[in-house]
Amino acid sequence: MAGTSVAPTPLLKDELDIVIPTIRNLDFLEMWRPFFQPYHIIIVQDGDPSRVVKVPEGFDYELYNRNDINRILGPKASCISFKDSACRCFGYLVSKKKYIYTIDDDCFVAKDPSGKDINALEQHIKNLLCPATPFFFNTLYDPYRDGADFVRGYPFSLREGAPTAVSHGLWLNIPDYDAPTQLVKPRERNTRYVDAVMTIPKGTLFPMCGMNLAFDRELIGPAMYFGLMGDGQPIGRYDDMWAGWCTKVICDHLGLGVKTGLPYIWHSKASNPFVNLKKEYKGIYWQEELIPFFQSATLTKDCTTVQKCYIELSKQVKAKLGHVDEYFIKLADAMVTWIEAWDELNSTSDIPKGPAK
Amino acid sequence: MAGTSVAPTPLLKDELDIVIPTIRNLDFLEMWRPFFQPYHIIIVQDGDPSRVVKVPEGFDYELYNRNDINRILGPKASCISFKDSACRCFGYLVSKKKYIYTIDDDCFVAKDPSGKDINALEQHIKNLLCPATPFFFNTLYDPYRDGADFVRGYPFSLREGAPTAVSHGLWLNIPDYDAPTQLVKPRERNTRYVDAVMTIPKGTLFPMCGMNLAFDRELIGPAMYFGLMGDGQPIGRYDDMWAGWCTKVICDHLGLGVKTGLPYIWHSKASNPFVNLKKEYKGIYWQEELIPFFQSATLTKDCTTVQKCYIELSKQVKAKLGHVDEYFIKLADAMVTWIEAWDELNSTSDIPKGPAK
Repeated sequence: MAGTSVAPTPLLKDELDIVIPTIRNLDFLEMWRPFFQPYHIIIVQDGDPSRVVKVPEGFDYELYNRNDINRILGPKASCISFKDSACRCFGYLVSKKKYIYTIDDDCFVAKDPSGKDINALEQHIKNLLCPATPFFFNTLYDPYRDGADFVRGYPFSLREGAPTAVSHGLWLNIPDYDAPTQLVKPRERNTRYVDAVMTIPKGTLFPMCGMNLAFDRELIGPAMYFGLMGDGQPIGRYDDMWAGWCTKVICDHLGLGVKTGLPYIWHSKASNPFVNLKKEYKGIYWQEELIPFFQSATLTKDCTTVQKCYIELSKQVKAKLGHVDEYFIKLADAMVTWIEAWDELNSTSDIPKGPAK
Repeated sequence: MAGTSVAPTPLLKDELDIVIPTIRNLDFLEMWRPFFQPYHIIIVQDGDPSRVVKVPEGFDYELYNRNDINRILGPKASCISFKDSACRCFGYLVSKKKYIYTIDDDCFVAKDPSGKDINALEQHIKNLLCPATPFFFNTLYDPYRDGADFVRGYPFSLREGAPTAVSHGLWLNIPDYDAPTQLVKPRERNTRYVDAVMTIPKGTLFPMCGMNLAFDRELIGPAMYFGLMGDGQPIGRYDDMWAGWCTKVICDHLGLGVKTGLPYIWHSKASNPFVNLKKEYKGIYWQEELIPFFQSATLTKDCTTVQKCYIELSKQVKAKLGHVDEYFIKLADAMVTWIEAWDELNSTSDIPKGPAK
């Protein structure tokens, strides 16, 4: 497993929240108990708020349902999706910690090739605490890992690396495929354990999946908006993609690193490809224009904070993607609302919060 | 191992040359016999041409020493380095095949985690015959590999990929470190087998090592010039780096892919770090200016062939790196000479060649 050359990694017990969006009882936490129990958990309950979500005993958590979201955000609650796991970003908003780990409730503990349970959270923390290398490619992957280094020809001036803002983990068993690929390859399972963590180079976009994702909330939190999806919206399943595109553009602008690779989780079951196709089909079409937009998006020098970057990006979305569909006008407005909500809840130390327990 | 979904990969027996630069007897070929014997080998003998290089029986080879190089290239032989493995690029010049695999004579057959001998050449051929994905990052690595695909959010318009021009393989045991890192970590060995092949994204440079490298000569051959190194030159050990920077810029311009990862070879022994430091120290300093130069280098639309790209790049080297050291003026001229030599030896079907056997 990916050790570093420093002393045992701090667990960040009091500096990290685990955010879980769900519509069901959280029995899956039983399997994660050895790894998650020391941490605080923020549950964002999607759908019918009168439904009771059961959480296994012994976990330290707060739970927000739609009523809580509406009460806390008031009219700004419109930026938080309903009936879609995109609602998870509300958890990022109300967290007071430096780091976030978010995981789906159909993700279980995977095993490494030696048969050992993978502590996904520990690996994410290692990834986040260790620098990234976005400015030049290292062919032996993570140069900071035990037994590895920068190879010949890697400029010495770049060996300090950049702060890591995002750690994107992967999935064994059910891969994160779109509906068409699910339909074409219903039996495909990911069995390949690739023992690597790598930095996604500056200027390169990637498809960020929200299933097994950690980030530094202080460095990049306000860019982790999962958009308008689900109920009343024309698309779904592009929440994490949207966040990933925006986040990567802003990380590149601010000189922050995004890593992908280890840790793996065990993704237990594929979602319904027919339902997914309905949610995705506009996104599949639109992304052909969205990706070039984000690939060529540039931010001005006065965008010195994530918030400023994000507001600037929202303006470009409105100006340059409005012609694709009026949905993007609405989304651009929601991006602004999200930043207002972020600043409202994160600008002072005592924030009105009232989670149901 | 990295299979593809197609039928057994063609061996390309009559379409690939193995190029080996050497100063010693090629006993190392014994270990490679099961994999290399079907192929034609081009040996470029470095140093004293009167020395006899012994080749194990049964291999099909041609051997060029310095006298051959001088005779074949005449005054243009000045672009081929002497007393440096950079002389290997002469082999690329005289080859008449579509593909080249080049390997150092201190590289042996590595084993995969199951203990099986790795057929490095076969993996390189798979890498070259299968498309690359330079325009967008796929988080499950090579999407064309068995058991993998493009993940959700990967634009469908980019799923045909781009032709692969270069396959850069890695090294178990002795990693390819620069002299300072060798000195600081004399005992470090690479024991991590990362089971992945990936495309280096467009716009990202990487340190290309010539130890275990394959490429499509028709697509990118003229850019694979290993520069002026060794005898009479102020630096060494930057031959492959130089070729890598030029090649990557030109591949990006022409829409070609560069892959790195599998296959591994077993690199048997570290070269002397003190000798290396003497060869490298100017390069270590200069590369801080060279990398930004190549990172920002752009080629005009009329650069439609590798040759045109390379000549254009040589002009930029002269104009923008001449102030770093006069060496780069000389190198820029040698780049032009190299292209002249390439065109001379590759423009017609009957080329005057006379290898010693």
